[in-house]
Amino acid sequence: MNGPNLNLLGRREPGIYGTDNLQTIAAQLFDEYRDEAELEWWQSNHEGSIIDKLHEAGYDERYTGIVLNAGAYTHTSLAIADAIAAIPLPVVEVHLSNIFSREPIRHTSLIAPVCMGSISGFGAKSYSLAVRALL
Amino acid sequence: MNGPNLNLLGRREPGIYGTDNLQTIAAQLFDEYRDEAELEWWQSNHEGSIIDKLHEAGYDERYTGIVLNAGAYTHTSLAIADAIAAIPLPVVEVHLSNIFSREPIRHTSLIAPVCMGSISGFGAKSYSLAVRALL
Amino acid sequence: MNGPNLNLLGRREPGIYGTDNLQTIAAQLFDEYRDEAELEWWQSNHEGSIIDKLHEAGYDERYTGIVLNAGAYTHTSLAIADAIAAIPLPVVEVHLSNIFSREPIRHTSLIAPVCMGSISGFGAKSYSLAVRALL
Amino acid sequence: MNGPNLNLLGRREPGIYGTDNLQTIAAQLFDEYRDEAELEWWQSNHEGSIIDKLHEAGYDERYTGIVLNAGAYTHTSLAIADAIAAIPLPVVEVHLSNIFSREPIRHTSLIAPVCMGSISGFGAKSYSLAVRALL
Amino acid sequence: MNGPNLNLLGRREPGIYGTDNLQTIAAQLFDEYRDEAELEWWQSNHEGSIIDKLHEAGYDERYTGIVLNAGAYTHTSLAIADAIAAIPLPVVEVHLSNIFSREPIRHTSLIAPVCMGSISGFGAKSYSLAVRALL
Amino acid sequence: MNGPNLNLLGRREPGIYGTDNLQTIAAQLFDEYRDEAELEWWQSNHEGSIIDKLHEAGYDERYTGIVLNAGAYTHTSLAIADAIAAIPLPVVEVHLSNIFSREPIRHTSLIAPVCMGSISGFGAKSYSLAVRALL
Amino acid sequence: MNGPNLNLLGRREPGIYGTDNLQTIAAQLFDEYRDEAELEWWQSNHEGSIIDKLHEAGYDERYTGIVLNAGAYTHTSLAIADAIAAIPLPVVEVHLSNIFSREPIRHTSLIAPVCMGSISGFGAKSYSLAVRALL
Amino acid sequence: MNGPNLNLLGRREPGIYGTDNLQTIAAQLFDEYRDEAELEWWQSNHEGSIIDKLHEAGYDERYTGIVLNAGAYTHTSLAIADAIAAIPLPVVEVHLSNIFSREPIRHTSLIAPVCMGSISGFGAKSYSLAVRALL
Amino acid sequence: MNGPNLNLLGRREPGIYGTDNLQTIAAQLFDEYRDEAELEWWQSNHEGSIIDKLHEAGYDERYTGIVLNAGAYTHTSLAIADAIAAIPLPVVEVHLSNIFSREPIRHTSLIAPVCMGSISGFGAKSYSLAVRALL
Amino acid sequence: MNGPNLNLLGRREPGIYGTDNLQTIAAQLFDEYRDEAELEWWQSNHEGSIIDKLHEAGYDERYTGIVLNAGAYTHTSLAIADAIAAIPLPVVEVHLSNIFSREPIRHTSLIAPVCMGSISGFGAKSYSLAVRALL
Amino acid sequence: MNGPNLNLLGRREPGIYGTDNLQTIAAQLFDEYRDEAELEWWQSNHEGSIIDKLHEAGYDERYTGIVLNAGAYTHTSLAIADAIAAIPLPVVEVHLSNIFSREPIRHTSLIAPVCMGSISGFGAKSYSLAVRALL
Amino acid sequence: MNGPNLNLLGRREPGIYGTDNLQTIAAQLFDEYRDEAELEWWQSNHEGSIIDKLHEAGYDERYTGIVLNAGAYTHTSLAIADAIAAIPLPVVEVHLSNIFSREPIRHTSLIAPVCMGSISGFGAKSYSLAVRALL
Repeated sequence: MNGPNLNLLGRREPGIYGTDNLQTIAAQLFDEYRDEAELEWWQSNHEGSIIDKLHEAGYDERYTGIVLNAGAYTHTSLAIADAIAAIPLPVVEVHLSNIFSREPIRHTSLIAPVCMGSISGFGAKSYSLAVRALL
Repeated sequence: MNGPNLNLLGRREPGIYGTDNLQTIAAQLFDEYRDEAELEWWQSNHEGSIIDKLHEAGYDERYTGIVLNAGAYTHTSLAIADAIAAIPLPVVEVHLSNIFSREPIRHTSLIAPVCMGSISGFGAKSYSLAVRALL
Repeated sequence: MNGPNLNLLGRREPGIYGTDNLQTIAAQLFDEYRDEAELEWWQSNHEGSIIDKLHEAGYDERYTGIVLNAGAYTHTSLAIADAIAAIPLPVVEVHLSNIFSREPIRHTSLIAPVCMGSISGFGAKSYSLAVRALL
Repeated sequence: MNGPNLNLLGRREPGIYGTDNLQTIAAQLFDEYRDEAELEWWQSNHEGSIIDKLHEAGYDERYTGIVLNAGAYTHTSLAIADAIAAIPLPVVEVHLSNIFSREPIRHTSLIAPVCMGSISGFGAKSYSLAVRALL
Repeated sequence: MNGPNLNLLGRREPGIYGTDNLQTIAAQLFDEYRDEAELEWWQSNHEGSIIDKLHEAGYDERYTGIVLNAGAYTHTSLAIADAIAAIPLPVVEVHLSNIFSREPIRHTSLIAPVCMGSISGFGAKSYSLAVRALL
Repeated sequence: MNGPNLNLLGRREPGIYGTDNLQTIAAQLFDEYRDEAELEWWQSNHEGSIIDKLHEAGYDERYTGIVLNAGAYTHTSLAIADAIAAIPLPVVEVHLSNIFSREPIRHTSLIAPVCMGSISGFGAKSYSLAVRALL
Repeated sequence: MNGPNLNLLGRREPGIYGTDNLQTIAAQLFDEYRDEAELEWWQSNHEGSIIDKLHEAGYDERYTGIVLNAGAYTHTSLAIADAIAAIPLPVVEVHLSNIFSREPIRHTSLIAPVCMGSISGFGAKSYSLAVRALL
Repeated sequence: MNGPNLNLLGRREPGIYGTDNLQTIAAQLFDEYRDEAELEWWQSNHEGSIIDKLHEAGYDERYTGIVLNAGAYTHTSLAIADAIAAIPLPVVEVHLSNIFSREPIRHTSLIAPVCMGSISGFGAKSYSLAVRALL
Repeated sequence: MNGPNLNLLGRREPGIYGTDNLQTIAAQLFDEYRDEAELEWWQSNHEGSIIDKLHEAGYDERYTGIVLNAGAYTHTSLAIADAIAAIPLPVVEVHLSNIFSREPIRHTSLIAPVCMGSISGFGAKSYSLAVRALL
Repeated sequence: MNGPNLNLLGRREPGIYGTDNLQTIAAQLFDEYRDEAELEWWQSNHEGSIIDKLHEAGYDERYTGIVLNAGAYTHTSLAIADAIAAIPLPVVEVHLSNIFSREPIRHTSLIAPVCMGSISGFGAKSYSLAVRALL
Repeated sequence: MNGPNLNLLGRREPGIYGTDNLQTIAAQLFDEYRDEAELEWWQSNHEGSIIDKLHEAGYDERYTGIVLNAGAYTHTSLAIADAIAAIPLPVVEVHLSNIFSREPIRHTSLIAPVCMGSISGFGAKSYSLAVRALL
Repeated sequence: MNGPNLNLLGRREPGIYGTDNLQTIAAQLFDEYRDEAELEWWQSNHEGSIIDKLHEAGYDERYTGIVLNAGAYTHTSLAIADAIAAIPLPVVEVHLSNIFSREPIRHTSLIAPVCMGSISGFGAKSYSLAVRALL
């Protein structure tokens, strides 16, 4: 699951986020875990839609875990944090960039306390490590 | 009106929110006020939809007041606060749990200053008291 | 139970607190709950007396709950908060005015975390809702 | 582009925002710039929709700039700020009221650092100045 | 009116408060204003008693003003501030020492905003200036 | 000397304060120091009474020191701190619980800077150590 | 009116302030508004002189408004803010650079709350927009 | 001695500062103390000139004290505070309005700690009390 | 590389850190990466020794990366952060527990901004993911 | 156990720490408890060595408790606090001086929350009371 | 260049600033560097004059560097900092006293970040070291 | 004396610290002061060793002063500050870079208040000036 502005990946500030777009990252990930897991990919810029999706997936027996890059909502959305706390499925927080070497407002994660764990700073590789952690 | 994650009520952290789900609470409330008032029930996880609904209801002559449990948006949404200030209808803030005995980020309510009054900590009974206050 | 300056009600800043005095509020309340409950009314400007009274009432089997308007002590008295935590009787916090739309020092309640629940902003009606909540 | 609650303009707190509604402001603006520019007008109460729209317009060659009144999201939405930083189109921040003479929470703009410039306090005239700045 | 620990004046930290005791100060004051005003002198270490006294004097037609040295309660008692705001009589705040050249906790006065004016740093002379201000 | 809510000891939150009540603690203390010192025991919930008592004892030649458990007033009463500074008798601050492992508001002691020393966390034994320190 | 260091414009940090000097900006401005308004141009590095000038112009009937770039005094001079509040003439605050994308100390404007409106980030064009706003 | 914007007194925000202008206040003061003291009157909007004047007067044997209304420099000028500390003459701080009931930035006085004492809130009468305090 | 108190792993607070000790974790890790990488294991409770080791390894061509669990030094040691910034080798920060769901002092990492990336919350698995990230 | 700079005791700032050196204090302590307990004495200026020692002693069955004066590390070493939490042996925090009457940075103790209790301000006598508390 | 109150040197608080006056310091300095450099000496209490002088000297080819003791303006004048940043000449910040062992407001230097370097605490010798640094 | 990471000088971030290594700086310094003073050079990454060394040198009659570059410990080590305060020898604080133009955590020096004076920003020349100051 991906949050706001991640649909622009590859076009947006490549100095920070790299030049891969989400499609490429998804393709690589699906390829890497082809034999180990069935993955699904989803993105939205709407806080409410992310919450709806977390509820839906969180009680759907087909899933065994969620990898969530909540983008800027990481730092401002208590409602997403509540949604994560409200579902039984484990959620792993990922970030492409190292959020701690950016501006202060990005050093605080409201969702980290309710996630199983957190991985940041490895670019597209962050997603792969998160899936590895869930398996 | 109910905000984010309240649709999970009864399933979500019953130690904090109780085991009643929203449907049961709504049914009890409708039953209790059967002879006194005509109630309507609405829930959304979308900040924007809550604002749209406040605008719509706030200028609709069929309503005489709004009982709002804004969930986590209580603490982060200045836009919902602005929506409440922008309508002539009185709004009563309710919370199932006592928000003051939870973590610090939940001690500040952005919407309280523009509400008519605030009721928190009485579980499902909070809704009933809020309707009573509006009558 | 009522805290400091509430004895001046009706005379003091009627723009904020309304023109009813405590006697009128008490009379209305006693009248409203005549058939449902036996109420007692008490007021003091002394923090220590409020603590003494909480201890006394809190272990007196004749009472089933306390409605407390602690006035300005709400925001400064950790000792009253300790007294509430130290007794088995449930305490409901009430305020005539909406404390969240007043100056910042009144946005923090030291006693709220140890109360059962909190009701503010409905004027004299706040007391009535609090009794309703306890029943 | 206009953010939350601006659809209520003219009805909402006229002491702060004036009595013109958005339609009137838009009409005057279209009229004033009839010969100089082709303008488009858009409003939403949804943070996610504003982000979607910024992405869409930001990479659409028909536009040469965006005038954005983000309303209350100005002060709380890091995700909209990220969206502005993620598009090549220049964005000018406008406010009808002087946000600095209002309550402290409105003194901080999360989107100002990534905008080209900022104009506030001139009522409906703020939009006109912003278009002038972009030309 | 005098607040906590002022009864020890003359014995307590003479480096800060001088060697005159309250009785001497009162005597000088009564003497200085013998022909101009009828003065009364009162001291208590109890926050509640100071509030009781303010209420009583504040609605008693025999008084035309109150000179209040609230001692340490100046910096911690919102309840005394409320009491001052709740009475029609003007109150002048006095301090023997210059509270601004002492430790930081004494730089904030909760009662100053609701007093008519404030005089500090002139030792026993502060009382005399306060009476002069009220006349 | 004991401050607010300590009269409830043994009944109040035994997980934090132990099951001994003040009488038992006093009896043990008197017994332990029977041959070494003459002890007196006093408790009040009133901030003003504690100040009065400190003044009275502080200039009474029969005493050689004061052991003070100021309870919640430890953290909010600048007036008690002033009273301690105003008397020549040494005062030792004691706490039953380790105030530093409780909530943040209890980490700051206004009276500690003017006490001779401070002992906390040893339950009823804290009193015994304080008397030992004074001898 | 222009504040401290603006006389160095064109020589000083051209990366932030551009390469136009004040004379060029003034000339362009006079030229642009030749037919619409009579403009005057003034600069000083002295806080006191800016206040003197505001007083003088503020009560001089020949002027209908003031465009003020107070430079660094924007962030530190409460006295200039008081001067603006003390005169009947409307004042528009301008900045060449976007002060919100610079260091934190420049995000707070003491003069903004008392100005009619604020324009920043459009380089020399900021002055032109400010004059347009006043007309 | 008078600081910035005080020359506008009587014209500037009469709701806060009254309708008397400085000349009238000076005349009344000179008249009141005709037989007791020789007074001099001075005003400047320049921080540097106030410092120059303090130095000059502070070592001039003709003066026995200074009454200083530093206006907005009260809250921002550490240099004036240093000038006061650097001279042997006693300085009394005065304010026409009660600075503690105005906005927060006016609650802190940088010069108060080095003044002999402070008087605020009595309008033109503040000056008279300050002269009385110096005599 | 492992920092302070990690030598006690398995004995220390197993509720937070699990029951595996460092030896077991090391053995599993060596086993898992037997064919992919040559690993080395090191632990010290001394801040200075960790810095010495970082310098030594950081310029030693035999290493291609460092996995660092700095324990409590994560939150207090600017000197270790400087050491990481001073070496050309990439460093990955790991934590056994989710540091964001623990006490506030553990939410700030001084070393995160200079590390390549950060992984926390997956227990012994955190080390494995970190090695995977470096490969 | 003694932390940094305590080896200089008697030579270092005798106004704060007294003129006894550590050897004298140790000798007195050994003498006082000759018949009651077997004491050991240890000092180091190295944070890491203190941690090593805590681990070693903490799991050594010969000891029944630790008296720790961590000196300046009290206020900055989270790693020592973790070491205390990681061992089963009770630790009593002692300070020679009253840390609360010194500069603000010394008012916060990172190790206090994980110690059994805390004793400060009694000079060399602090150690004796701490041993008494452990027995 | 010297800022406010430095003209009083030798007369002002000799405990902090020494008994040498500026003339003596200047004379010694001129004497010490007679053969190495041509020095000029300047002092003003006016913030604006210091800025004017910095501009003038900063673009005057006769100078190769500026030694600036900005006195209290060091801590409050962003405008002087801007002036230093706006000129190509290197500026060395000097202080007679060790500003870090004085009150907190003097611990922050607004001008330090834009100076070449900073020297404080060596009395008159600070000037000599600063000239040495520039040569 | 030199603190952590200074052994890497010349290799570490040359943009900030220059390309000279410590050996070169030491050699130049020894050379410059060959005829004036006998210098010794020492470096360690261990906080405890720096304290040990300060104690040893501080009471060794062969030394007349210490030049200390404490590196990152400048900002975090209260224990080193205590060690400096505990010895009779004067200590001069030096920094190669201007610590005030770096990140905020480096603007606060814990050791500055107890040093004789402070010199920063002149690169290797800082050491030379510090020795000059001690002579």
